[in-house]
Amino acid sequence: MSITAPQGFTAAGIAAGIKSSGNRTSPPKDLAVVHNVGPHFRVAGVFTRNRVQAAPVKWSRQAVSDGELAAVVLNSGGANACTGADGLADAARMAAATAAHIHVPADDVAVCSTGLIGIRLPMEKVLAGIDDACEALDGDGDADAATAIMTTDSVPKMALRTASGWSIGGMAKGAGMLAPGLATMLVVLTTDADVSSDQLDGSLREACRLSFDRADSDGCMSTNDTVLLLANGASGVTPTPEEFDGALTALCQDLARQLIADAEGAHHEIRIEVVGAAYEEDAELVGREIARSNLFKCAVFGQDPNWGRVLSAIGVTDADFEPDMLDVSFNGVQVCRGGQIGEDRALVDLSGRHVHVLVDLHAGDHTATILTNDLTYDYVKENAEYSS
Amino acid sequence: MSITAPQGFTAAGIAAGIKSSGNRTSPPKDLAVVHNVGPHFRVAGVFTRNRVQAAPVKWSRQAVSDGELAAVVLNSGGANACTGADGLADAARMAAATAAHIHVPADDVAVCSTGLIGIRLPMEKVLAGIDDACEALDGDGDADAATAIMTTDSVPKMALRTASGWSIGGMAKGAGMLAPGLATMLVVLTTDADVSSDQLDGSLREACRLSFDRADSDGCMSTNDTVLLLANGASGVTPTPEEFDGALTALCQDLARQLIADAEGAHHEIRIEVVGAAYEEDAELVGREIARSNLFKCAVFGQDPNWGRVLSAIGVTDADFEPDMLDVSFNGVQVCRGGQIGEDRALVDLSGRHVHVLVDLHAGDHTATILTNDLTYDYVKENAEYSS
Repeated sequence: MSITAPQGFTAAGIAAGIKSSGNRTSPPKDLAVVHNVGPHFRVAGVFTRNRVQAAPVKWSRQAVSDGELAAVVLNSGGANACTGADGLADAARMAAATAAHIHVPADDVAVCSTGLIGIRLPMEKVLAGIDDACEALDGDGDADAATAIMTTDSVPKMALRTASGWSIGGMAKGAGMLAPGLATMLVVLTTDADVSSDQLDGSLREACRLSFDRADSDGCMSTNDTVLLLANGASGVTPTPEEFDGALTALCQDLARQLIADAEGAHHEIRIEVVGAAYEEDAELVGREIARSNLFKCAVFGQDPNWGRVLSAIGVTDADFEPDMLDVSFNGVQVCRGGQIGEDRALVDLSGRHVHVLVDLHAGDHTATILTNDLTYDYVKENAEYSS
Repeated sequence: MSITAPQGFTAAGIAAGIKSSGNRTSPPKDLAVVHNVGPHFRVAGVFTRNRVQAAPVKWSRQAVSDGELAAVVLNSGGANACTGADGLADAARMAAATAAHIHVPADDVAVCSTGLIGIRLPMEKVLAGIDDACEALDGDGDADAATAIMTTDSVPKMALRTASGWSIGGMAKGAGMLAPGLATMLVVLTTDADVSSDQLDGSLREACRLSFDRADSDGCMSTNDTVLLLANGASGVTPTPEEFDGALTALCQDLARQLIADAEGAHHEIRIEVVGAAYEEDAELVGREIARSNLFKCAVFGQDPNWGRVLSAIGVTDADFEPDMLDVSFNGVQVCRGGQIGEDRALVDLSGRHVHVLVDLHAGDHTATILTNDLTYDYVKENAEYSS
C-alpha cells in the first residue's frame, strides 16, 4: 500500500508499448496515472536543479505553480529530454489527454518521464496508453503505477506512513544518475491530510533536503528529477505542522533508502555519517565529497577500509577542520584517529551489504548523513551498455 | 633522455626493498635521487591543494621556500601521508641522509613519496637505499629514476625539449588519484637554462595550470602531489621568457598526456575540448564536469556517444550558456545540435583508443581542453584490490 492508501486517490500502471523490455512484467508496464479525486487539489513540487531540463519538467513546473493539481501522468522508456519544442508539445499533449479523461484543464496535470535522453516519445502509443490507464484508475492501482515507472530499477519503491485519521503514501523510481539536487528520480507523494498549499511547499522542500538530496549514488544530476506532493484533505484531519513534517520526512527518507538500496550495480549500501561539524552544510559537504570519491567507492567494493581515501576526499573541501584532528571509523572500528593510523584495519568486516562510515571533524556539534553505494563491475556494465 | 639531459644534473634509481613488487623490475626499483650539481641551485615548486598533506609535502614546501634546492629524494612503496609527527621526522631524515652525501644543508633537499596512505616507511631500508642511490648518481640515471617512482604506472614517463644551447627534461609518475590541483603525481623537471628564481615560479605555475591541472582521470586529488623545477644555468644561455615558457608548457603537456594515457584501467583516452565559452574558467569548468561524470565515462567505455550524459553534466555548472544552443560532437560527428538530436549517433566510431569530444557553448571565444579517460572494469578492479 502506498499512494492509493490515503483516501481520495486512484492510480493505474499499464503497458503502452513504449518500451520492449524491463521491470519484470511482460509486456512491460511503462505508463502510469495518479488521480487526486479531491475534495482539495493542493500540490507542491520540487524539480531538478540541472539547467538542462527535460520537457516534462518545464511543463510540470508551470502546472504546479498555482498550487493546484488533479493528476500526474508518468512514463518510462524515454526521458523526453533535449527534444526541443516538439518534445515540449509532446508533454503538453500527454497532459491534455489525461486531463480530458478526468474533466480538468490540461494545466492541472503534471507530466513525468524517465528513460534515455535525446529521443522523441512514440506519441501514438503514449496517447493510447493514457486512454487505457485512465480507464484502469483504481484505489488499488499503486503497485502497478510504481512498477510502470521503473527503468533500471530492480524493484518498485513504495512507502506509507499512517497517523491518527490520515496517512501519506509515496512511490519512487531511480537507480542511476542518482545524485543531489534530487536523483534521476521521479517521486509522487499523496496525502489525505488537510494541509494548506503554503505549508505543503515548505514541508516538501525541507523533507527533500533531508532525504533525496542526501542520496548520492553516482554524483550525476538528472534532467528529469521531479518530486510531487498531492494533498486533498479527504480525511478532514489537519495534523500539527510537526506531525506532518515528521511523517513526510520519514516517508521520503524511507524512499531514499530504497533508491540507494537498489542503485545500479551496488554491492554495498554505504551510510556516511559526519559528526562534529561546525555547520550542517560542512557535514553535508564532507559526506558528499566522500560519497563521490571513486577510489573510496572501489575500496568498499573490495572490502577495504581505506581511510586514506576518506581523508584525501575530506581534504579537498573547505569545511572547518584540522587534518590532525580527524577520526574515521568503518563499521565501528576507528581505523583513523587524530588524522593518523588508529585501530587495526584487519578488525573491520566489510563483507556484509551495509557499511557505516563515521567521520568526526571535531569542529562543532552539527551532523549530516549521506547515503551512497560502492563502485562495482556491475555499475560499469549497466552504464556502458544502457543505451546500446 | 629526460632529467639528466640538461647539463649539470645526475640521477639514480635503485631497489631499496621498500616494496616487494611492481614496475616490472626485479627486485623493484623504489628509491630515486636527482642531484643538481650547479652552478646555480634555483627551484620552483607546486604542491597539492589537498588540505590533508603528506609529510614529504610539508617538508618540501619548506625546503623550496627560499628558492634554492640541490637535490630531490623520491620513493615509491609508501606515501608517508597521515603519519603524524613521526612521519614528518622520517621525511626530514630522508632529506638529511641525502644532504650528507652531497654536502649541503638538509633543507636544500626536497622529499617526494608515493604509495599507500597511512603507513610508516621502513626507514632502515630507506636510509640504506639513499646511500646506494647517492653512490650510483650518474649522468645516465634518468630512466632508472623514472622507473623507481612508479606505483601502478605501467610505463615510466619521461620527456625532453631541447632549444638553442639549453634543454629542459622531466619525469613523472601517476596513474590513479589523478585529478586537478595536480594528480597523484610526482614530477621533477630539470633545466640548464639560466632563468631567475622569480621567473621560474611564475612559469611553473602557468605551465601546471595548462597541463597537469587539466588532466582529470578520476576526480580524486592526492595528498602527495608535487612538481619541482630545478634550474642550474649550466648552459650559460638565458632564453627569452616566451621561449622558456613555451618549452616548459609543452614539456608539461607531454607528461600530462603520458599520465592520462597510462591511467589505471583506461581503455580510452578522452580529450574534451570546450569552445565558445564566455571565459576560460567556464570552458575549464564545463570540461571538468564532463570528465567527472561516471555515466559519461562508462558510456565511452561502452563505445556509446551518449550526448545526453554530456548535456546533463554541463547543466549542473554555472557557466554561461543557453541549453538550446549547445552543440556536442564525438570524433567529428555532431550528435547534438542546438541542445537537440543532431547527426545520427550510429555514424560515430568509438572503437579506437582516442576519443575527441567537442562542446560548443556558443557564449564567447574562450576554450580549454581537459584530458580524461573512461571508467572500466579494470579501473574498478585495480582500485578495489590496490591495498589488500
